[in-house]
Amino acid sequence: MKDYIYKQTIKVRDYECDLQGVVNNSNYQRYMEHTRHEFLESLGENFGKMHDKGVDAFVSRVDIRYKTSLRSGDSFISCLNLSKEGPKLIFHQDIYRASDHTQATKGKVEIVVVENGKLTRGEYFDKLLEGLKK
Amino acid sequence: MKDYIYKQTIKVRDYECDLQGVVNNSNYQRYMEHTRHEFLESLGENFGKMHDKGVDAFVSRVDIRYKTSLRSGDSFISCLNLSKEGPKLIFHQDIYRASDHTQATKGKVEIVVVENGKLTRGEYFDKLLEGLKK
Amino acid sequence: MKDYIYKQTIKVRDYECDLQGVVNNSNYQRYMEHTRHEFLESLGENFGKMHDKGVDAFVSRVDIRYKTSLRSGDSFISCLNLSKEGPKLIFHQDIYRASDHTQATKGKVEIVVVENGKLTRGEYFDKLLEGLKK
Amino acid sequence: MKDYIYKQTIKVRDYECDLQGVVNNSNYQRYMEHTRHEFLESLGENFGKMHDKGVDAFVSRVDIRYKTSLRSGDSFISCLNLSKEGPKLIFHQDIYRASDHTQATKGKVEIVVVENGKLTRGEYFDKLLEGLKK
Repeated sequence: MKDYIYKQTIKVRDYECDLQGVVNNSNYQRYMEHTRHEFLESLGENFGKMHDKGVDAFVSRVDIRYKTSLRSGDSFISCLNLSKEGPKLIFHQDIYRASDHTQATKGKVEIVVVENGKLTRGEYFDKLLEGLKK
Repeated sequence: MKDYIYKQTIKVRDYECDLQGVVNNSNYQRYMEHTRHEFLESLGENFGKMHDKGVDAFVSRVDIRYKTSLRSGDSFISCLNLSKEGPKLIFHQDIYRASDHTQATKGKVEIVVVENGKLTRGEYFDKLLEGLKK
Repeated sequence: MKDYIYKQTIKVRDYECDLQGVVNNSNYQRYMEHTRHEFLESLGENFGKMHDKGVDAFVSRVDIRYKTSLRSGDSFISCLNLSKEGPKLIFHQDIYRASDHTQATKGKVEIVVVENGKLTRGEYFDKLLEGLKK
Repeated sequence: MKDYIYKQTIKVRDYECDLQGVVNNSNYQRYMEHTRHEFLESLGENFGKMHDKGVDAFVSRVDIRYKTSLRSGDSFISCLNLSKEGPKLIFHQDIYRASDHTQATKGKVEIVVVENGKLTRGEYFDKLLEGLKK
């Protein structure tokens, strides 16, 4: 496993598995969203409260490569790195099976930040992230 | 099949099936919610727009009996009747497999209506439902 | 809070909240399923592996009362007790907001156990539960 | 709108909307899965039955660009084209709001076909697709 700025361990829930007996593909995108929002909370902000203040982070693109399927009983480590490209926040999000660190998915998620309906250059996150650089 | 005031036919989506190869129990509750909201639209109202106006219908109780499991490839008929008990709207919601009308679930869903944070006696729905009685 | 034989603390995931800004009702049923399956793992069994052995637990009825809505940022304690009525396992499942122990939902979930397609008297679980009684 | 080999119209379900009041990003991936499986049924095959025969289609990569958010009350047209790259089936899947044909998402989904645990060159689908070419 590479180095990441944020990691959390999550257990597969059985309702997330589909008739193939593996975690349905769409749920990895949900795991990644939850991990970004938990990362946000680690910076002192909450996604729902941001929305109430008129600040919304919208996903503009996701690119996920599926490598190994997770199954009932598995735990996994959901990891995150972050870079910026112009106004976009780019989350590099990898998921590994906890038992043996086999990579399940490799994801890249692009986010734009909208304040009161207007696209921003991501200044809201720049401020939140300042603490991280130190 | 009994008589119902509202019916819609829906196809099972494969991601709704779990590792047992049948529709996960929680999804019947989702089917029922969708059917109530479609019924609402048939009365000329939309759930999201109601929320924006400060009127929210909240579920206070669900009671669902599971009789036959739906599977990949099945279509089903989601049916609804309605009664009132004091301030509560009581939705009687039955789901039948479309191919042979075998009953999949029998549900009873109790709803209260909150306007601007205050519990109401359901007057908002009384008005919507007036058209039905004629 | 009452005494329970099994408890776990879970964090709300934002995708579980709907346009009313609260956890969608169907997700409490999912939380309860996950808690039952985690309880099962605490007894040394796994739901997916049980299915592979030809033993399936099916929900025959759920009855959930909704008392207080959970929101983005909330953690909750998902609690479980267990009784038997004839061949049925009855799970009494309560969910409390973690911050102040306000009850969110009160649920009763009835389960039947099917082995190789035949309804059983729940002997499979009786054996698993023997350890608990000591 | 471009030409597509398969299209279906779907209504947004309110539980698919999140606290931002729009369809949660992960649900577009679910819509796309459902559309591929409905396309499969239009060719005379069912995803669940394929799995029972030991033939599984697995997603190896999804790339989705999000352009316009769908909301409560919206219907949308989920469209699909198909090409092959070596052993991979490439689904080009676009979603348009039904009311004005504004594009909601643009997706590319790569699929590999596994028979009895072995990666194939997609011959199973080649046969199914033969009817389409005529």
